[in-house]
Amino acid sequence: MVEEGPRYPVRADDLRAFVAAALRSVDVPEDDATDVAALMVEADLQGYDTHGVFRLRQYVDRLLCGGTNAKATARVVRETAATAVVDGDNGLGHLAMRRAAEVAIAKARDAGIGWVGVRNNNHAGPLALYVRPQLDAGMIGLAAAVGSANHVPPYGGTDLLLGTNPIAVAVPGGSDEPFVLDMATTIASAGKIKTLAQRGEAMPEGWMVGRDGRPLTDPKRQKEGFLLPIGGPKGYGLALAVGLLAGVLNGGACGSNVVDFTRDVGTPANTGQFVVAIAVDAFGDAGAFNDNIQALFAELRASTPLPHHPTVRIPGEGRAANRAERTRSGVPLHPALRQELAVIASERGVPPLAA
Amino acid sequence: MVEEGPRYPVRADDLRAFVAAALRSVDVPEDDATDVAALMVEADLQGYDTHGVFRLRQYVDRLLCGGTNAKATARVVRETAATAVVDGDNGLGHLAMRRAAEVAIAKARDAGIGWVGVRNNNHAGPLALYVRPQLDAGMIGLAAAVGSANHVPPYGGTDLLLGTNPIAVAVPGGSDEPFVLDMATTIASAGKIKTLAQRGEAMPEGWMVGRDGRPLTDPKRQKEGFLLPIGGPKGYGLALAVGLLAGVLNGGACGSNVVDFTRDVGTPANTGQFVVAIAVDAFGDAGAFNDNIQALFAELRASTPLPHHPTVRIPGEGRAANRAERTRSGVPLHPALRQELAVIASERGVPPLAA
Repeated sequence: MVEEGPRYPVRADDLRAFVAAALRSVDVPEDDATDVAALMVEADLQGYDTHGVFRLRQYVDRLLCGGTNAKATARVVRETAATAVVDGDNGLGHLAMRRAAEVAIAKARDAGIGWVGVRNNNHAGPLALYVRPQLDAGMIGLAAAVGSANHVPPYGGTDLLLGTNPIAVAVPGGSDEPFVLDMATTIASAGKIKTLAQRGEAMPEGWMVGRDGRPLTDPKRQKEGFLLPIGGPKGYGLALAVGLLAGVLNGGACGSNVVDFTRDVGTPANTGQFVVAIAVDAFGDAGAFNDNIQALFAELRASTPLPHHPTVRIPGEGRAANRAERTRSGVPLHPALRQELAVIASERGVPPLAA
Repeated sequence: MVEEGPRYPVRADDLRAFVAAALRSVDVPEDDATDVAALMVEADLQGYDTHGVFRLRQYVDRLLCGGTNAKATARVVRETAATAVVDGDNGLGHLAMRRAAEVAIAKARDAGIGWVGVRNNNHAGPLALYVRPQLDAGMIGLAAAVGSANHVPPYGGTDLLLGTNPIAVAVPGGSDEPFVLDMATTIASAGKIKTLAQRGEAMPEGWMVGRDGRPLTDPKRQKEGFLLPIGGPKGYGLALAVGLLAGVLNGGACGSNVVDFTRDVGTPANTGQFVVAIAVDAFGDAGAFNDNIQALFAELRASTPLPHHPTVRIPGEGRAANRAERTRSGVPLHPALRQELAVIASERGVPPLAA
């Protein structure tokens, strides 16, 4: 996840303080600004470079122009023993998703599972942030989201009606790092392409095709083509399933009613998501589960690598080391992002990051 | 799903009677034999040709040699308000999975969701069979299974430690056919390759590679290579997530302890699966949900097709027409399968299908 190139390391504390100040400058209350800044910087610390501070420009612009509600309060608006719906009140997506994870964990303590839908929400950074709290409770976490812009046509079609609709799964167990999968249902994510565009670098073939079906490699021409789903019709099926379960089921947008939050700063997005917690001990002995996970991960890692391949990894492996290194040495910001943050500081009248 | 070639149509009633007789001949009690035969032929009627009667040989051989328990009773062995674990007692997989779907639906009526894990089970045919009952209850169905043989290495590795680990999702709504996705997390399923081997046909490039990483197209050389996951590391992550949630969580096999049920007829497989039911009205108004689904499916179908592509389809579309056609004209069995059923009839001393 850590990409190459010249970087300017910024201390996590400084970055959090800067992001919180920028959010306060567009009327986000102090506690919410602090919490969202912490989650955004957490994404960067873990190496989700395209889903952390990189998104500040869009958040600020939408808060400024009324697309996102600065003074939102996420609330549970419907619930059963094992389910709930959280209405995000069109606030910063992180707030409703954090609440959804808390509610899911509480439900799972009593009912074995908690499945919490979210509606009237916005982009919330990487889904990994909302499946990791379940691990701390000894639970499994699941989450999915309708993407915050449509980049994908239905399989065989040419109209952009689906997002990259990501899925995340976190599983505790073993003495090593937990399993944490956070993946778009497309070969590449929109965030990765955005990063390449910002840096003036080309995309590999296979990420996107144009309307003529031919490969598209210039990230600045992204709007002329579409992202390819993993496994063709299978990835389309998965993306649509996420759209139905995270979007339509909760009363969230899916299809042509999805707002492109990178271009439209004034329209509420009604982003739909869901967060699930599953209590391991509802299904069996937690100790045996841990032992079995550990044995399985050990045999996966011990698999003889393909020629010229590194050792097999478990999804999520390396995030903890990444986090430790960045906590120590700072978050390495790309010059283009560094420059953008300086512009935001100037526009919003907040103290810039130290040079 | 319907493949080309000469076929011998067999009336569904005749096929059910034949399969039930074959199962009774290996000591499966009459009611269970009738129920499993009905589910197996239902798979063929819906066009899941590689997961219906095509599997009879393996089921019979394992029942005969003690790998599968003919007189099993699937039982709920653990439960909470919204979860349960069904122990399949090492019986024919269909019986425990059908029970799991019933329990999940009952839990979802009370708690909004029911998540039922299955252990000590066997191959159960296509997962679609266990997400469709939820539709009849106006609910969403989810299911996943650890594959009944390891055909996939962890990403970058060469040891077969994972199965095709399929996922199914069914969503009601609208006036048309429901959304039913049933997909392996590999580009091709083991069943499709088995069908090609039986027919002496080649695989397209991209389905499998050898240990040298080069394409493998002869389905008879399947054991020399491995299936490729959709989206490379993403499909690996999905397959492993299914292995953890459907296998390890329930105390089922995952990794080197998976029994290859196509080669080993004497060892209990301890196949793990899960089935979920989600009550639509726990999340919002069911009428609005139906309307929104219908509008979304209409705009997906109306998307301008890519050059030389047919109209966009919703996953599951065409299954109802397939079923109606096959109910009317018979299930078109491939000559190789027809021949195998004749051999089973002769071996087991049951009346063969009419010529």
